[in-house]
Amino acid sequence: MSIESIIQKTVSHWMQASGRLNDVVISSRIRLARNLEGYPFPLELSESQALELINQVKEAVAKAPDGPFEYVSLSEISPLERHVLVEKHLVSPQYVENPMGRGVAINDDQSISIMVNEEDHLRIQCFLPGFNLEEAWDCAAKVDDLLEASLDIAFDEKIGFLTACPTNVGTGLRASAMVHLPALVMTNQVNRVLGSLPQLGLTVRGLFGEGSDAMGNLFQISNQVTLGKTEEDILANLSAVTSQIVDKEREARQSLSEGAKEQLEDRVWRAYGLLTNARLIPGQEALKLLSDVRLGADLGFISNLELEVFNELIVSTGPAHLQYFAGQEINSMARAGQRAILIRSRLINADREEQRC
Amino acid sequence: MSIESIIQKTVSHWMQASGRLNDVVISSRIRLARNLEGYPFPLELSESQALELINQVKEAVAKAPDGPFEYVSLSEISPLERHVLVEKHLVSPQYVENPMGRGVAINDDQSISIMVNEEDHLRIQCFLPGFNLEEAWDCAAKVDDLLEASLDIAFDEKIGFLTACPTNVGTGLRASAMVHLPALVMTNQVNRVLGSLPQLGLTVRGLFGEGSDAMGNLFQISNQVTLGKTEEDILANLSAVTSQIVDKEREARQSLSEGAKEQLEDRVWRAYGLLTNARLIPGQEALKLLSDVRLGADLGFISNLELEVFNELIVSTGPAHLQYFAGQEINSMARAGQRAILIRSRLINADREEQRC
Repeated sequence: MSIESIIQKTVSHWMQASGRLNDVVISSRIRLARNLEGYPFPLELSESQALELINQVKEAVAKAPDGPFEYVSLSEISPLERHVLVEKHLVSPQYVENPMGRGVAINDDQSISIMVNEEDHLRIQCFLPGFNLEEAWDCAAKVDDLLEASLDIAFDEKIGFLTACPTNVGTGLRASAMVHLPALVMTNQVNRVLGSLPQLGLTVRGLFGEGSDAMGNLFQISNQVTLGKTEEDILANLSAVTSQIVDKEREARQSLSEGAKEQLEDRVWRAYGLLTNARLIPGQEALKLLSDVRLGADLGFISNLELEVFNELIVSTGPAHLQYFAGQEINSMARAGQRAILIRSRLINADREEQRC
Repeated sequence: MSIESIIQKTVSHWMQASGRLNDVVISSRIRLARNLEGYPFPLELSESQALELINQVKEAVAKAPDGPFEYVSLSEISPLERHVLVEKHLVSPQYVENPMGRGVAINDDQSISIMVNEEDHLRIQCFLPGFNLEEAWDCAAKVDDLLEASLDIAFDEKIGFLTACPTNVGTGLRASAMVHLPALVMTNQVNRVLGSLPQLGLTVRGLFGEGSDAMGNLFQISNQVTLGKTEEDILANLSAVTSQIVDKEREARQSLSEGAKEQLEDRVWRAYGLLTNARLIPGQEALKLLSDVRLGADLGFISNLELEVFNELIVSTGPAHLQYFAGQEINSMARAGQRAILIRSRLINADREEQRC
């Protein structure tokens, strides 16, 4: 596996439409922040210390029982390749701005990534399809155990795991669920429903985490507090709230289906017509239209589309992916053209494959 | 032939895409206003006089050498059927409001209609596809001769034909060309180009004549003055100006094709995608989208569509047609649904027929 093969593999495990409640919950993610004893936090790390640390991590992951990790050094790949990793959710957007002394270990199905020298020395991420926080937690805990077996992780008996930023101290855990809430948006309920989350210790972010807008009716819900609670409590709270949001979204879909079915079908099919015919599709519009078509597929208005095509297209129509596969930097108009070609061929193929079965 | 068979025949002769310059000129129309000696104008006509006059016309057209006319008494058909005749351009919108003592004779291919007791006793109309004013004039003149052979037409040696409204006196001739000017509209040139027509003795109207808006980028250009000019002069003037407008529209299309081809293709295919997928299409939007797709067909962006499908759909998606074929009065939302079904099946059929060839 190389950076090329990581990028060529356009369907990561989390994009599969096999998870629980996947009509609303796209994916579940667990992130653990860990640091090594005896080193300053990454911001203060010298070049040689960074390298030393990287080598320790590479050795540790080489012993992974569930198959090999590929270690990618950020300074050895192109800026475009780095942004492809961001679009694949394997690294964070802030992380790739300064590639020196940084790298990421990625497993074969891209469900696990370990960023080295991000804000903390280690950021372990497990990413699974559907509503699957517990399995994602099991996965992350295993990786944590693997690393702890050979690395000296900074841990205080009273406080818990030590982290660069106090907001991560304690469990170092951020659990999140990516939810698709088109009906709550259409019925103007989304602000009310999500507005109550901070009181429950949860935050809402957009598709690409902190600071990103909610595009394509996709919202990331995650815990805000990492200290003073057990991992089990954090997960139980997020799970309970996410389940309620799923119920609210399903109710809103049901009420739209009953009260305004014709308008909803019209909206869904218009989106499908545009996606399969337009010659220039800007990124924001693609997310909006894919959201409408996905809702139509969830409601059974469009029956012959595999659901994973939506997750795949959200990622593969990102600007970095389009430019990577075009083999060069291209402007936004050329990207809109490439995006239209990709979406058209992918949706029509997804349609035909289904019909053939 | 009956009112049912007239309505069932959805493709009138003028809708065929066989005429000259039919990339811009949809159809050519000649209308002659005539009145009978010895009767007051229709507004002053008694019921028995109206009936007498109708019977004379029925007798006269029965002798038509080119096949029979069907005479339809407006008071004997339903309001919906009357409005279908309006949408087919066989009678004028104002005409059907008061059906008493009125009727229309229509030939087999619907290229000729003779309204009895409209504003004048007789309104002869010939309607042909493409840019074909001379043939339409020949056609109307023949019908005029046929009627004159047995009716006593009011004619003054000095003034010419006498008509109810002084604006029609003289030749009683209104010649018009229906033109499709999407590129002049898109490039904001249409007001300038058409704005000069009044100085040339011409007027511009929308799809349904006087008082109607220009929908779907369709404009009717016709002569304003009927007096003091020969029929030949009127036709020559309209022909020359229409030719110039055709040139300007073609230039605008060429320049759009060169300067903004991707955006234009995108616009055309988006319209096609919406027309073949939307589940609710309001009438105005249908005309706008059909205009875009027709432009795409004219420019070769969409190669496998018969052109006559556009003329047919403009007419058959009218509210009266939709309600007639639904078998009942239906509201605008239900019409939008019926319109979408009709357009989708017709465009997809038009596509498949071509592919089969």
